[in-house]
Amino acid sequence: MDNSQPQRIEPRTLKGFRDFLPEAMIPREKMMETARQVYRSFGFSPIDTPALEYLEILTGKGSEETDRQLYRFQDHGGRDVGLRFDLTVPLARFVAQHIPTLGTPFKRYHIATVWRGENTQRGRYREFMQCDFDTIGSLSVASDIETGLVIHDLLRALGFEEFTIRLNNREVLNGLLEKLGLAENAATILRSLDKLTKIGPEKVAAEMVASAGTSESQAADVLKLSALSGSNDQILKDLAPLVAGSEVGEGGLDRLDRILSGLEAAGVPGPRIELDVSIARGLDYYTGAIYETFLDALPGIGSVCSGGRYDNLAELYTKQHLPGIGASLGLDRLLAAMQELDMIETVRTPADVLLTCFDPEQLERYLQIASLLREAGIGVELYPDGKKLGQQLKYADQHGYPLAMIAGPDELAENACQVKDLRSGESSQISLEQDGQQLIDHVRTLLG
Amino acid sequence: MDNSQPQRIEPRTLKGFRDFLPEAMIPREKMMETARQVYRSFGFSPIDTPALEYLEILTGKGSEETDRQLYRFQDHGGRDVGLRFDLTVPLARFVAQHIPTLGTPFKRYHIATVWRGENTQRGRYREFMQCDFDTIGSLSVASDIETGLVIHDLLRALGFEEFTIRLNNREVLNGLLEKLGLAENAATILRSLDKLTKIGPEKVAAEMVASAGTSESQAADVLKLSALSGSNDQILKDLAPLVAGSEVGEGGLDRLDRILSGLEAAGVPGPRIELDVSIARGLDYYTGAIYETFLDALPGIGSVCSGGRYDNLAELYTKQHLPGIGASLGLDRLLAAMQELDMIETVRTPADVLLTCFDPEQLERYLQIASLLREAGIGVELYPDGKKLGQQLKYADQHGYPLAMIAGPDELAENACQVKDLRSGESSQISLEQDGQQLIDHVRTLLG
Repeated sequence: MDNSQPQRIEPRTLKGFRDFLPEAMIPREKMMETARQVYRSFGFSPIDTPALEYLEILTGKGSEETDRQLYRFQDHGGRDVGLRFDLTVPLARFVAQHIPTLGTPFKRYHIATVWRGENTQRGRYREFMQCDFDTIGSLSVASDIETGLVIHDLLRALGFEEFTIRLNNREVLNGLLEKLGLAENAATILRSLDKLTKIGPEKVAAEMVASAGTSESQAADVLKLSALSGSNDQILKDLAPLVAGSEVGEGGLDRLDRILSGLEAAGVPGPRIELDVSIARGLDYYTGAIYETFLDALPGIGSVCSGGRYDNLAELYTKQHLPGIGASLGLDRLLAAMQELDMIETVRTPADVLLTCFDPEQLERYLQIASLLREAGIGVELYPDGKKLGQQLKYADQHGYPLAMIAGPDELAENACQVKDLRSGESSQISLEQDGQQLIDHVRTLLG
Repeated sequence: MDNSQPQRIEPRTLKGFRDFLPEAMIPREKMMETARQVYRSFGFSPIDTPALEYLEILTGKGSEETDRQLYRFQDHGGRDVGLRFDLTVPLARFVAQHIPTLGTPFKRYHIATVWRGENTQRGRYREFMQCDFDTIGSLSVASDIETGLVIHDLLRALGFEEFTIRLNNREVLNGLLEKLGLAENAATILRSLDKLTKIGPEKVAAEMVASAGTSESQAADVLKLSALSGSNDQILKDLAPLVAGSEVGEGGLDRLDRILSGLEAAGVPGPRIELDVSIARGLDYYTGAIYETFLDALPGIGSVCSGGRYDNLAELYTKQHLPGIGASLGLDRLLAAMQELDMIETVRTPADVLLTCFDPEQLERYLQIASLLREAGIGVELYPDGKKLGQQLKYADQHGYPLAMIAGPDELAENACQVKDLRSGESSQISLEQDGQQLIDHVRTLLG
């Protein structure tokens, strides 16, 4: 036995956690960058908050399920702490603390990791990225419209053209229930309504009668909501008599109308927005406009960007009343969809050119050529070792480099190099004269 | 007593943890983006690893201090886990696991949060960002050169012109010690040498004699290294006799020479690189080239980007021998320096234009104008509420918006709007004709 061998530790990650290899991380990073750009273009600012918070900040704010899934422990000072399980609770704590300084409206985005001790058998991860934007301190319909517009511009910027943003306003439901004298039973009724696609209208009606104590005619009236169909205009028209006489219902309907016109005025094509008054998402939480977003090609994966308006974000931490609206991009879900839809190139490298090291003696020439290209904004990886050319070209190919450059003694004697397009296999010899301008132009042309 | 009031939780962060408000996060995000761009331009790819690792992966690999500072706990499955305290240990685990698939050379960057239960009395944070790049699996001098070049290009891309990159090669020290018959005592000697600036050469010599058991003449010979001065060429020349006859020393000297020429060939101005053979950084770890980077205006804050070559990254996790070289940008330290040097504008918003909501009835017109500008790549925040104009302009000013736009009934009747430069106070009325082209041009001109 060789005692000089160190005892090895098996290299592995925890269940539910993952490494991101370059081919997964490159598109992921690109998505995050796109999200940042879109959020910024609407004046949302980035913030960050600690991964660890006092346990009391995190518990009790989410559901019993999130409490159970919380990663919690005692820190070195004996404090009870936990890892954040979403970005909304930290936002609530953040605004309670900082709104007195920052003022309102406060528009922030936050792209960060969250942790949940989920059951991994359901294919869930215990560590994932959230990508949220919110407008705090405004009740305006302008914020409602903007939220839909950000979702729309974000999806387009990510490369999607065929998607549907479903819009609802909780006030319409509330108005109908108020009119039917069922305002008190809203939560129970909505929970039944939420099962509509699963169990069908008859069973939902029966459940409403049984669990919420509605009459059969009341149940039938509630179900009229979900039976509405046709154009958005038609739905608005058909909704009017259902909420007529309820101030909150009529107001909610008017707001839906204004959101739709606003989105159209801002350039969102009408067919991308679909009124769906049966969305019951976040029923204990959202109080106004609600958004969900579905990919037309993959509706089954669920909503890829969802959110809505809430009445009072930070009531656990401050007496200041802070209404707001926001949404969250499902980064991982969308990335999986993009993979399924073949929207992601298998590029494992972020640069465009692999410069081979044909002759290590010429390293300084290679360094010069690489610097010339980088100064022109073209990314270049210089292969570090003088391995066989075939091996270097194989590396370039495997990493998805579109172009390789080869400069052997013959080429360099003529102050030139070969540029090989690895996609077509074609090569040309290009002069390095004039500070490499011809090379830069050639590479730019090939990269398109 | 009003029982309807919820019991409030004090909104606060843990000691040693911080919120990043927009004015801190905007420049921080910009720095990370710059780092990503520079790393990519050299063909480094992004990776990510879990924040939580099996405890056995993390312990024993760092120092006793990092072991003590580790945030550790048992997860829901009773596993001993810990939060990563750096990005090097996760990289070692990662390459042991994935290099068989990824192959070498493997060039990655990793920008991510790490956690250490530091003593906050020393002004340290318990959560901070690291920003590392490494090349694994190459012993070539090309990788040594490239590491210095990345540091150089990174500092310049971040806006620095006056900085000094100090370069050393541990092989030179090793060669000298070998020649003096002190190879076995290297660690102890270097630990003494490291105190040179603090306690001076006499005390260092005395300590070498006392703790490493060198003779006085040996100590004097070692100290010759640190007494070298003059140009890099001069230092190389003076080093030659000190290591003559030691293969590792002569090889190390030759490598230093080639790194210096390579950096020069790649366009790094000579004065930015300074040979400093007394750098003893990471003496238990680095085995070849070592880099440190100092801002000329603020040398006292220490090195802002450091790294070096190591022999075997992942020996705890794999029998595969994986040499490499890398460095780490001190993001927070550099950000603090930029603040001190007044290099950061106090911009609290990432967009360029605040479009006021002069008249809420005109919301759809405002939405149209904002969309036109965004399509032209100009970020616009539309103020969501119809508050007094003065209040909206104050908001624009406080958030550092350079431009504000005002479109009241008079302007809109003429299909125009006012653009106010908040820096100069000047306003002009600009036509909205031709899909806002005149407006776009005017805004672009004002933004420069």
